[in-house]
Amino acid sequence: MKTVIAIIVMSLALIVGSQVSFAGETAGYKAVIQVSDNDPAKWNLALNNARNAQQELGKENVQLEIIAYGPGINMLKLESEVGGRLAEAKDNGVVIVACGNTMKGQKLAPGDMHPAAKIVPAGVVEIIKRQKEGYAYIRP
Amino acid sequence: MKTVIAIIVMSLALIVGSQVSFAGETAGYKAVIQVSDNDPAKWNLALNNARNAQQELGKENVQLEIIAYGPGINMLKLESEVGGRLAEAKDNGVVIVACGNTMKGQKLAPGDMHPAAKIVPAGVVEIIKRQKEGYAYIRP
Amino acid sequence: MKTVIAIIVMSLALIVGSQVSFAGETAGYKAVIQVSDNDPAKWNLALNNARNAQQELGKENVQLEIIAYGPGINMLKLESEVGGRLAEAKDNGVVIVACGNTMKGQKLAPGDMHPAAKIVPAGVVEIIKRQKEGYAYIRP
Repeated sequence: MKTVIAIIVMSLALIVGSQVSFAGETAGYKAVIQVSDNDPAKWNLALNNARNAQQELGKENVQLEIIAYGPGINMLKLESEVGGRLAEAKDNGVVIVACGNTMKGQKLAPGDMHPAAKIVPAGVVEIIKRQKEGYAYIRP
Repeated sequence: MKTVIAIIVMSLALIVGSQVSFAGETAGYKAVIQVSDNDPAKWNLALNNARNAQQELGKENVQLEIIAYGPGINMLKLESEVGGRLAEAKDNGVVIVACGNTMKGQKLAPGDMHPAAKIVPAGVVEIIKRQKEGYAYIRP
Repeated sequence: MKTVIAIIVMSLALIVGSQVSFAGETAGYKAVIQVSDNDPAKWNLALNNARNAQQELGKENVQLEIIAYGPGINMLKLESEVGGRLAEAKDNGVVIVACGNTMKGQKLAPGDMHPAAKIVPAGVVEIIKRQKEGYAYIRP
């Protein structure tokens, strides 16, 4: 009898614990910002979005990831006209991601990309996975 | 012993209750509609999206919020060419939101904006927060 | 007493079971891809996104739905220049959806649409419902 009750109490503790840890996880904000246009105005808007979110929420309270794919990949090339802002965003903790599929299609090598950019196999999959992890989606 | 069982039963009731209330919360629909283009065709499309969602789901079953920022802010200026539709949408319960950061950048005062618009400090943060609250995201 | 304990154990089994089935549900990926631009480059990008997601995640691990509305409806007309790719995407399990509201507005009959397309009353509502079901949102 005592064993049964002990098992029940332990199970309850586990369940309650998992609920609490879930609630804890929702304390911070997360967002993925998609760039898929070949338009420097959009690139600057994406970078403004990231900066404004950090200023408003506090850098430590928001995880941000900018993902460029398709025609947006030009934002992350070595000679990108927003290169300075990319470096600054990375320094501020924003993750910058380039789509490997797009790079392959455009015959871009890692050395052709801005050093702030991390390469993933497929940008679209990264965006799907991040949303599943609770990231909000923003497409400027 | 009876005390232990009473605690267990009460804990179970609490857990089951929280699951039920969670299920209850999912009964209604919520969506945030982002406008970040300076394009009246997009503004009308956003307003059509809101109207169609209300017609299809029933006004009382869907909470809608249109958020304009960046180049989309012109949709919410006093002289906006969709001003009549903004007033109508607000009357139908759609929340209309202007980005304070964009207003500051364009030196727009509250008096420069359409009276249907509510001002928030940062449009992008509003969009992130709403998604965290379970709002769907639509960018026409 | 034994009855009370039996009820508690059964309740626990139910709760634990529901959590496990919830975790099970999250094993697969789901995404809705919105097309609302009258731009064949965007249509091809949307179809590339679907193909890349299937290649990277495995067809059986990702449910994809492409929804066209507003000016994007032209993607799904009978004479669409991406007609061959639509048929191929459907064969690969991608659900292709046309917005009935847009069709009505443009006086399009079901016979005017590509046979790969399924028609829903309101595209925007389909997108809202899918996100509520846990689909990620992608707008190429």
